Amino acid sequence: MTQESLVLQLAQSAKTASRVLALANTKLKDKALALMAQALRDNQAAIIRENEIDLERGKATGLSLALSDRLKLDGKRIQSMVQGLEELIKLPDPVGEVLGSIRRPNGLEVSRVRVPLGVVGIIYEARPNVTADAAGLCLKSGNAVILRGGSEAINSNRVIANLLARAVAQAGLPGDCVKILDDTSHEAIYELLKLEDYIDVIIPRGGEKLIRSVTEHSRIPVIKHYKGVCHVYVDNFADLDMAQKIAYNAKVQRPGVCNAMETLLVDVAIAGQFLPKMLEQLQQAKVEIRGCPRTQKLGQNIQPATEDDWYAEYLDLILAVKVVDGLDAAIEHIAKYGSQHSEAIVTNNYRHARRFQQEVDSSAVFVNASTRFNDGGEFGLGAEIGISTQKLHARGPMGLAELTSTKFVVWGDGQVRE
Amino acid sequence: MTQESLVLQLAQSAKTASRVLALANTKLKDKALALMAQALRDNQAAIIRENEIDLERGKATGLSLALSDRLKLDGKRIQSMVQGLEELIKLPDPVGEVLGSIRRPNGLEVSRVRVPLGVVGIIYEARPNVTADAAGLCLKSGNAVILRGGSEAINSNRVIANLLARAVAQAGLPGDCVKILDDTSHEAIYELLKLEDYIDVIIPRGGEKLIRSVTEHSRIPVIKHYKGVCHVYVDNFADLDMAQKIAYNAKVQRPGVCNAMETLLVDVAIAGQFLPKMLEQLQQAKVEIRGCPRTQKLGQNIQPATEDDWYAEYLDLILAVKVVDGLDAAIEHIAKYGSQHSEAIVTNNYRHARRFQQEVDSSAVFVNASTRFNDGGEFGLGAEIGISTQKLHARGPMGLAELTSTKFVVWGDGQVRE
Repeated sequence: MTQESLVLQLAQSAKTASRVLALANTKLKDKALALMAQALRDNQAAIIRENEIDLERGKATGLSLALSDRLKLDGKRIQSMVQGLEELIKLPDPVGEVLGSIRRPNGLEVSRVRVPLGVVGIIYEARPNVTADAAGLCLKSGNAVILRGGSEAINSNRVIANLLARAVAQAGLPGDCVKILDDTSHEAIYELLKLEDYIDVIIPRGGEKLIRSVTEHSRIPVIKHYKGVCHVYVDNFADLDMAQKIAYNAKVQRPGVCNAMETLLVDVAIAGQFLPKMLEQLQQAKVEIRGCPRTQKLGQNIQPATEDDWYAEYLDLILAVKVVDGLDAAIEHIAKYGSQHSEAIVTNNYRHARRFQQEVDSSAVFVNASTRFNDGGEFGLGAEIGISTQKLHARGPMGLAELTSTKFVVWGDGQVRE
Repeated sequence: MTQESLVLQLAQSAKTASRVLALANTKLKDKALALMAQALRDNQAAIIRENEIDLERGKATGLSLALSDRLKLDGKRIQSMVQGLEELIKLPDPVGEVLGSIRRPNGLEVSRVRVPLGVVGIIYEARPNVTADAAGLCLKSGNAVILRGGSEAINSNRVIANLLARAVAQAGLPGDCVKILDDTSHEAIYELLKLEDYIDVIIPRGGEKLIRSVTEHSRIPVIKHYKGVCHVYVDNFADLDMAQKIAYNAKVQRPGVCNAMETLLVDVAIAGQFLPKMLEQLQQAKVEIRGCPRTQKLGQNIQPATEDDWYAEYLDLILAVKVVDGLDAAIEHIAKYGSQHSEAIVTNNYRHARRFQQEVDSSAVFVNASTRFNDGGEFGLGAEIGISTQKLHARGPMGLAELTSTKFVVWGDGQVRE
């Protein structure tokens, strides 16, 4: 059989399974999630064995330490995958929720009801925990999933996906609800991205390069999770102690995630008062500062920021700092260089807070709070499959509800259109 | 200036205008809509003059009668464009609607608020009335619009778009909120479809070929309005008089639209009783019948249906008819050949109604009512830009709300993440 037809067969079997899963009730899906969690718990040794094969190969092929660390599974990480699946059992089932209902003058009753998307394709990089997280979220929302992880993690992903598929079958649902594409060639991905008749949405999770490549090749709608070039703007009317606390938290508390601050903007009116202490505190936390000329004058050991720095998502203890001429300049800087992810203003000025909230076009806009709160759990939405930076379908944290579509259900008594 | 940079310049100016429009209040947008309506009313003669140039050229280049009819503008059609704009004034503004708000344990207040998408690109064929309809819907929902109609209608579209842009400017909003791409070459479209940094969504309106081409070339998210291969299934538990009334309405009342029935499915148990009268009534209305072998035995002058007929969107007085072995066979036929647009069952059986409603995966599923009701106005949603057949972002009638995105707005008092 050719490779093309293997990918096609995989997608077709997922589609067939998705029609059964779409009709499954919550109890049955929760039973499957419990068995999925159980399967990972019971087979921890086997998972670690396969993961070690990936790690050995990574060592042989010169995988970076950072990637090796993301790839590595131990008892604690497997336990956290198990907990993730178990927490999904507690979340409400989005499928079947009625979003609105109207009785029309002619007596027709029209309801809008949440339904699963169908088949979700997840394309991701080295983290094998995504395999379990994505499979769980898709199952609870009634979607079959096709998992295509990076080649570095193929043995880990294969054992996890197969355990999960077997658990789903054990619960009485089609095992094909969880499929892994274990052909990690580019050709297999490109083939997959053309199967618009069988796959309803593609969610790429990973670096900018991966996401751009998927977007360019896909005929299937893509929900993008681009980079987070997040800004904190310290206004001339800010409580400067609060501003320092928020900026420090947004940069230092967990620098490797997409909602961490990458650029600090400071109004020139308070820069002289604010920046020296702020920069010192950041440098004590080992943050490398790259500043505009005005910033450089207010601290020690500050590299000059280049044009590229304003666009950069460092995901690291590096921060770009710019002194700006007030709110308008801050908003313009964000519009030009930002990635519409998470932005915060620190101010006690009512008009400035309101303008920033209205004029900054990001998935989450904060007044007097850290950008780090842009997160499904922190917003009370439950587990998320990522943070969407696009405007269509889902924007911001993407949870179970965002893994559904809707349909109109109409009850009549013989009505015809005049 | 090269063509590439002209398209880029157009998109950039629309993006700049969209940022101003996004912040405009409802009163100002309604004022612009009123002036847009006024401009079309006052310049009817000029519009008809430009339209005649298009019609003349169409005659010279052998445009079909059907296309010439779609292209033609007269007083009545211009009046209906004017009314369309005026009706938008009465509809509620979707921008700023709070879709949910929560106070988190740490005191953060998180709201999800509707915001405009930004810049909407509409790619359409010969109907110049789309120019006014789309511009009005986009303006009311706070979006700048780039209009790219077919070359056959270029003079009509240009005069209408320019009148509308001038009216928008007269209201005090940027005239660049309504832009027309009057380079109708393929190269200009392909260039436009790459400008993902300036255009937020592309809505193609037209035949299947146009939509497939746009989907394949676009890097910008596309909301598809594919074909409507709509089915009515007459169950063995149907009220047969009701079934005849519904099927007749779904086929004959307006055969050229996407929610008209294209295939009639009839349970074998009642086919002998139902079909002879039904087929006769349809044939009296000049409907050409293409039937399966069992259908052919129950009527006169019935062409044999080929495999292609089950996939066909005739948009004409042609109907495919199939006798099926019960509900399961009907659902399978729809899953295989349907376009997930509008499907109806006629039945008095509770279990069958419920199964059809749950198992048929279409944008609207009807019990005992005509498929022709799948329409924004009929569902009480107001004017629509089309009926989406995709599952992401918008499914079914796409009105003002579906021309928006959301953002999270978060009010804090210095909260940081632990």
